[in-house]
Amino acid sequence: MSKNLKLGIFGFGVVGQGLYHVLEETKGIKAEVLKICVKHPNKKRPLPERYFTFQKEDILENPEVDVVLELIDDPEAAFQIVSTALKKGKAVVTANKKMVADHMTELYDLQKKYNVPILYEGACCASIPIIRNLEEYYDNDLLSAVEGIFNGSTNYILTKVFAEQKSFGEALTEAQELGYAETDPTLDVGGFDAKYKLCIILNHAFGLFVNPDDVFNYGIQNISEFDIKIAREKGYKIKLVAKSRKIGNRVVAMVIPKFVNEKSELFKVENEYNGVIVEGAFSEHQFFIGKGAGGYPTGSAVLSDISALTYNYKYEYKKTKQVSNLELSSDIELTIYLRFDDPSLIDKDDFIKILEEYKALENQYIIGKINFSKLVSAKWLSSPKVNMILMHNGDENHR
Amino acid sequence: MSKNLKLGIFGFGVVGQGLYHVLEETKGIKAEVLKICVKHPNKKRPLPERYFTFQKEDILENPEVDVVLELIDDPEAAFQIVSTALKKGKAVVTANKKMVADHMTELYDLQKKYNVPILYEGACCASIPIIRNLEEYYDNDLLSAVEGIFNGSTNYILTKVFAEQKSFGEALTEAQELGYAETDPTLDVGGFDAKYKLCIILNHAFGLFVNPDDVFNYGIQNISEFDIKIAREKGYKIKLVAKSRKIGNRVVAMVIPKFVNEKSELFKVENEYNGVIVEGAFSEHQFFIGKGAGGYPTGSAVLSDISALTYNYKYEYKKTKQVSNLELSSDIELTIYLRFDDPSLIDKDDFIKILEEYKALENQYIIGKINFSKLVSAKWLSSPKVNMILMHNGDENHR
Repeated sequence: MSKNLKLGIFGFGVVGQGLYHVLEETKGIKAEVLKICVKHPNKKRPLPERYFTFQKEDILENPEVDVVLELIDDPEAAFQIVSTALKKGKAVVTANKKMVADHMTELYDLQKKYNVPILYEGACCASIPIIRNLEEYYDNDLLSAVEGIFNGSTNYILTKVFAEQKSFGEALTEAQELGYAETDPTLDVGGFDAKYKLCIILNHAFGLFVNPDDVFNYGIQNISEFDIKIAREKGYKIKLVAKSRKIGNRVVAMVIPKFVNEKSELFKVENEYNGVIVEGAFSEHQFFIGKGAGGYPTGSAVLSDISALTYNYKYEYKKTKQVSNLELSSDIELTIYLRFDDPSLIDKDDFIKILEEYKALENQYIIGKINFSKLVSAKWLSSPKVNMILMHNGDENHR
Repeated sequence: MSKNLKLGIFGFGVVGQGLYHVLEETKGIKAEVLKICVKHPNKKRPLPERYFTFQKEDILENPEVDVVLELIDDPEAAFQIVSTALKKGKAVVTANKKMVADHMTELYDLQKKYNVPILYEGACCASIPIIRNLEEYYDNDLLSAVEGIFNGSTNYILTKVFAEQKSFGEALTEAQELGYAETDPTLDVGGFDAKYKLCIILNHAFGLFVNPDDVFNYGIQNISEFDIKIAREKGYKIKLVAKSRKIGNRVVAMVIPKFVNEKSELFKVENEYNGVIVEGAFSEHQFFIGKGAGGYPTGSAVLSDISALTYNYKYEYKKTKQVSNLELSSDIELTIYLRFDDPSLIDKDDFIKILEEYKALENQYIIGKINFSKLVSAKWLSSPKVNMILMHNGDENHR
């Protein structure tokens, strides 16, 4: 029979409150909130005072607490809480993607050492059960690629900018007001949030432990009206895409804006939705769409982890045991669109081949083939007056 | 640690062979095939003879066998095997939708009585983990609807008929040759296969035990060139859709051909793929696409069940315990397209309202509102010269 779990929660923001309400309205789950640890003593809160504490020991040192839910913003404080909880033999559920991505190795070791699970489905694409799905692929060579839209707020922004001709700033403010955006918008807009999720997925898909700093991310902050016009003319939308592909013993991974045409499954993933494509040897092609942001979808994923703990579920990390010489690689040819106003800003010699060139008074662009390793180290890419977008078939030749 | 499971398999057709190869190539799973029980002693088989037996006792009475995989065609023989296995304390994995749908109550009782799990993810939409996903919704009132394309072979046929102007018979033969179609094609084409899956889903979504005979199914066998022409003119595709929706304490369920337009997520689900839309209170709208037929996708779902057994997973059937006055109902208004050549074949008085009428020399159709309970009992619906298709917004007013 399933256990009646006692929960201690850290953080009571969008996700914490979402979880509380989901839990409250879900009679089928036997779990009870004992304490909620919060930072600011003076904030007004929608629950009676007796639930709240400002001392983390009230949860971490409380022998009654079975499960610690870590739902705070600060990744380093979160790691302190989570590692202490695991050392005390408490199961952990977290939705903190940066914390998990930054400390994957330590969290893996702590779980093994203290024989206690940590689950983090809510950290990846909220309502899409992607980690559990990837755990169902038992060998890393049975998976060839995971690709998708992993960030709800940038997808919301791009949808609004595209469909409703809103300005970038206007759409961002709207996303923040709706609770889809991280407190620091550069985390979303710069592709960092999607990258943390990708790093977690790289582990469950291929068994790789990667440092997020080693994975390339390029955001949507430089997208201009001109870029959008070009996309429209070509029948594309622009989506911020997280990609990973296993090629022999190399894994290529990146977060990058991409032109997608209507044949792509990602074309129709709009607003705060996320979409994930999984290419496997036997199931071949699976596609998942679901809400990727917001307190309720994330709360519901957290609840699903709590429920899994009642039957002693834990991630098996099977693929980490199969990895021998697998490594992250940037040796792949990409076809990119590169827009700039002044040709002195960029270096065409970095390209293997220029396929198209366009010049007008205020805008120029080239479409060309470039090695990913060259792109990663290109100085011109950091200019705010330059924008880069992966072509819709930008790495097709490697499929 | 996960157990090393010993498997006894019944049946070595498309799914059995698919499973064997998936298992063979999946080093990450510790499970071993002990015996395979087959019916025909003289068939040529791709494995050494020592694997095979023609006596079911060699598996059912073998104390070494932990898990019985039931992968045969005949639902009644399958139920005998499965119920015996459960009584002997052996876990069961099956992909037999008709058997599970027909015997849901008995299987539920056997599991409880003998405290041994039966898993059947492979019975519903092959590579889409729909049952496990529905198990993650803990209360039936947190789910409002499950709808989708549940049958790969009819979707393959409709895709070919639509996109490649193939004839119905030609497309069916092709689907059978590819191993997507059931041995008896009326199971697929008549919507029975989709209905069995829907019945299983009705249990895991809403907690209902239903007799498949009580669920309405209308197939695609009467679709004519004219219907396809009309669909094209209106910008629709025809999809065979399984639908269920909870409205208060009633659940409406049916399998029915439906016009879908490009705004529907099902529009792009083509060939042997299945697609399932889940509407939930907290995750709101999830959509899953994956291969819905074929030995490998089904084998991979079966393997995922085998793996789940290594950590003692079982379905919780939480919603069956929450059901008090929930019942299957056909009291809902539908908007349907009805085509016929002779108006004496149908009875317009059955309709609440006729919205459109079209007459030509050889074909006539009406589009009108009708109560579902009226439709279910309409005699004219059994005429092979009549065809009925649900309009794309056919029950929208109840959403």
